[in-house]
Amino acid sequence: MGQAMEHKTRNAFYAQSGGVTAVINASACGVIETARRYRQHIGTVYAGRNGIIGALTEDLIDTSQESARDIARLKYTPGGAFGSCRYQLPGWEDQPAPYARLLEVFKAHNIGYFFYNGGGDSQDTAWKVSQIGARLHYPIVCVGIPKTVDNDVPLTDNCPGFGSVAKYVAIAMREASLDVASMAKTSTKVFVLEVMGRHTGWITAACGLARQKASDPPPILLFPEIPFEAKTFLAYVRHCVEKYNYCTIAVAEGLRDQQGAFVSESGLRDVFGHAQLGGVGPVIAHFVHQKLGYRYHWAVADYLQRAARHIASATDVEQAYRLGEAAVTLALQGKNAVMPTIERISHKPYTWRVGVAALQDVANREKMLPREFISRNGFSITAPCRAYIQPLMHGEAYPPYKHGLPDYVRLKNIAVPKRLATAFTV
Amino acid sequence: MGQAMEHKTRNAFYAQSGGVTAVINASACGVIETARRYRQHIGTVYAGRNGIIGALTEDLIDTSQESARDIARLKYTPGGAFGSCRYQLPGWEDQPAPYARLLEVFKAHNIGYFFYNGGGDSQDTAWKVSQIGARLHYPIVCVGIPKTVDNDVPLTDNCPGFGSVAKYVAIAMREASLDVASMAKTSTKVFVLEVMGRHTGWITAACGLARQKASDPPPILLFPEIPFEAKTFLAYVRHCVEKYNYCTIAVAEGLRDQQGAFVSESGLRDVFGHAQLGGVGPVIAHFVHQKLGYRYHWAVADYLQRAARHIASATDVEQAYRLGEAAVTLALQGKNAVMPTIERISHKPYTWRVGVAALQDVANREKMLPREFISRNGFSITAPCRAYIQPLMHGEAYPPYKHGLPDYVRLKNIAVPKRLATAFTV
Repeated sequence: MGQAMEHKTRNAFYAQSGGVTAVINASACGVIETARRYRQHIGTVYAGRNGIIGALTEDLIDTSQESARDIARLKYTPGGAFGSCRYQLPGWEDQPAPYARLLEVFKAHNIGYFFYNGGGDSQDTAWKVSQIGARLHYPIVCVGIPKTVDNDVPLTDNCPGFGSVAKYVAIAMREASLDVASMAKTSTKVFVLEVMGRHTGWITAACGLARQKASDPPPILLFPEIPFEAKTFLAYVRHCVEKYNYCTIAVAEGLRDQQGAFVSESGLRDVFGHAQLGGVGPVIAHFVHQKLGYRYHWAVADYLQRAARHIASATDVEQAYRLGEAAVTLALQGKNAVMPTIERISHKPYTWRVGVAALQDVANREKMLPREFISRNGFSITAPCRAYIQPLMHGEAYPPYKHGLPDYVRLKNIAVPKRLATAFTV
Repeated sequence: MGQAMEHKTRNAFYAQSGGVTAVINASACGVIETARRYRQHIGTVYAGRNGIIGALTEDLIDTSQESARDIARLKYTPGGAFGSCRYQLPGWEDQPAPYARLLEVFKAHNIGYFFYNGGGDSQDTAWKVSQIGARLHYPIVCVGIPKTVDNDVPLTDNCPGFGSVAKYVAIAMREASLDVASMAKTSTKVFVLEVMGRHTGWITAACGLARQKASDPPPILLFPEIPFEAKTFLAYVRHCVEKYNYCTIAVAEGLRDQQGAFVSESGLRDVFGHAQLGGVGPVIAHFVHQKLGYRYHWAVADYLQRAARHIASATDVEQAYRLGEAAVTLALQGKNAVMPTIERISHKPYTWRVGVAALQDVANREKMLPREFISRNGFSITAPCRAYIQPLMHGEAYPPYKHGLPDYVRLKNIAVPKRLATAFTV
């Protein structure tokens, strides 16, 4: 009986992958808190230090050494509490070695549940790991948990991480627009904000929500989906400045020209003549100044936008937590190779429920911004886009403060003693 | 009797000047709400549209047309609600015309109180206007109200606007450091944040408060007061990355090299070979990458930092309001050519009171960051600096939200009918 129980109780592995977000730790919190409620099935949650690399190198973190209070604090702490990684597993056929290694580590630590918290690329890794059971005859249930600020994971209405970055950039644009409006008479007339988004314009679209009233100038949005056309753009900037006395521009880092080249690489050269990577914001601002003569300011939000837990969306935090929780309940039901999703039931009032997708259908696919979410002129969002994004930004979930700063948790992250004699290099 | 009353009741002029802040409207709120409590002395508060330019061009805003509720909402709205300007009055001797014009406008609108809300440059304008009474035999009481994110106004312990930007940049650095710490294993190891500060390092110093624990890497601070020395800097970056696996760097826009030239102008050239103005953040990030090979990210906060009312310091909001209030009570006491100040009584607990300085002593002087606030190696802040800045960031004064965004007020800003036949061009 005791042995049967022992056999049934297996440990879980949880890891974070890819670029982190303001709420990825809320998903971790959902996983760990839920697993702790099912101790008869799940022994310890081991976190991978730096994503799947922690599994491959047997660098596991014992989350049972963290207090309930500290685990609860993950819900309001940005970044990846256990470290993340940019690493993709090779194909089974090309390179079986990493899979054999994972099997060794899983066996050595009695790991029967595998949770991988990441974007589309990371779900490919989760999908590959989910095949270990069938291919290597080792019982493991593998569940992906979606995460990305880019909102490009398919088969989920939206992705945890996006609502908070959307809220951040919309607030930043609104606040900066009040600033430039004050300065426009004698100084700055054009403000440019560069936001994340290599391929998809979801974050750029969120900047469109900064517009408060029809009497405010429309933020001019430069989407990665719409090839940059200088003449139309300049005419629109001039129109806005002449009509409203100032204008604001949001530009995606991945903006491309008519030939498909990144605009960020077209403008600036360092002193050695190398193209400057990043920085499409300053390129656009300089270009406007050169052609139209307006004084400008520009900002590049970079990590600030995806780390801004201080102003995270309460909806986003809740969804991140619920998907972590759902991943555990799916795993306990024995559902292998799946990912919990967000299904929108209604826009107004906004209601949603947890759904499920197959990892195989999620991996390596990007959900693009639909063309009908972009205005005909290509510089604004449409009413359906606003209706889609607005509820995702709803609510404030403020962290506690200490000495004027958010009191974010730093876990102890104590390593599990290694059991394998062999090392593995990634 | 009625006439005597009429004679005693005079109107006030209030205007905003220079770069705006997250809390300058809280000072406006303090002025207008206090003036409304003294209707027997102060008739209407006219706001200058775009600073002193509004007075010169007789473009006055009738704030009595705004509801008490909307005036109260100024307390949590960033930017300059009436428009600001970058404009300095010429010297009396060089050009008497603007003063004659101001006199005309003041007479036409029975303006007996003049409030000017700005930094050191703007207090010079306030000082010049305060001489109208004696020189042109027109009774006017002129009071300055300090405002600047740069914290460089002298004779006040700190300046409204600074506490909020300090809080913003310290939070941004802390959040970004959690992000880069997560990514460092396989990706970004160095994060650079460019902050405001052409001449003084107060904002850069505030970034130093991001450090939570001694076990965290110290944020490397590049102050405008400390000439940039590449070798020492690179050695320190390498030391931090080797010890902690990552590092964060805050750099002031006004960082200069050993020859006194702006570092922002030394690095990048546009395609035509012109120096790129602004952008010392990317220059430093590229330089680190070139010399040490580390992967990097950089952000430029620009207007976001000074417009970030969503995370303003409650202490700062309170002080901005109180100085607006104090300006009115000083004016009612007939104190001409003064500016209310903040006097620190104690660090811990932090207590302060309102003091008074003479405008003549304030105008055109900058309060530099004391050398003893900077560590010996030049890259960190000292304990006294931390003790000075920390209370100024204390407390959160969240604005109300609507549809996921701060519900900032836009005033009606209705123009007062012009009474003068003549125009004035600035």
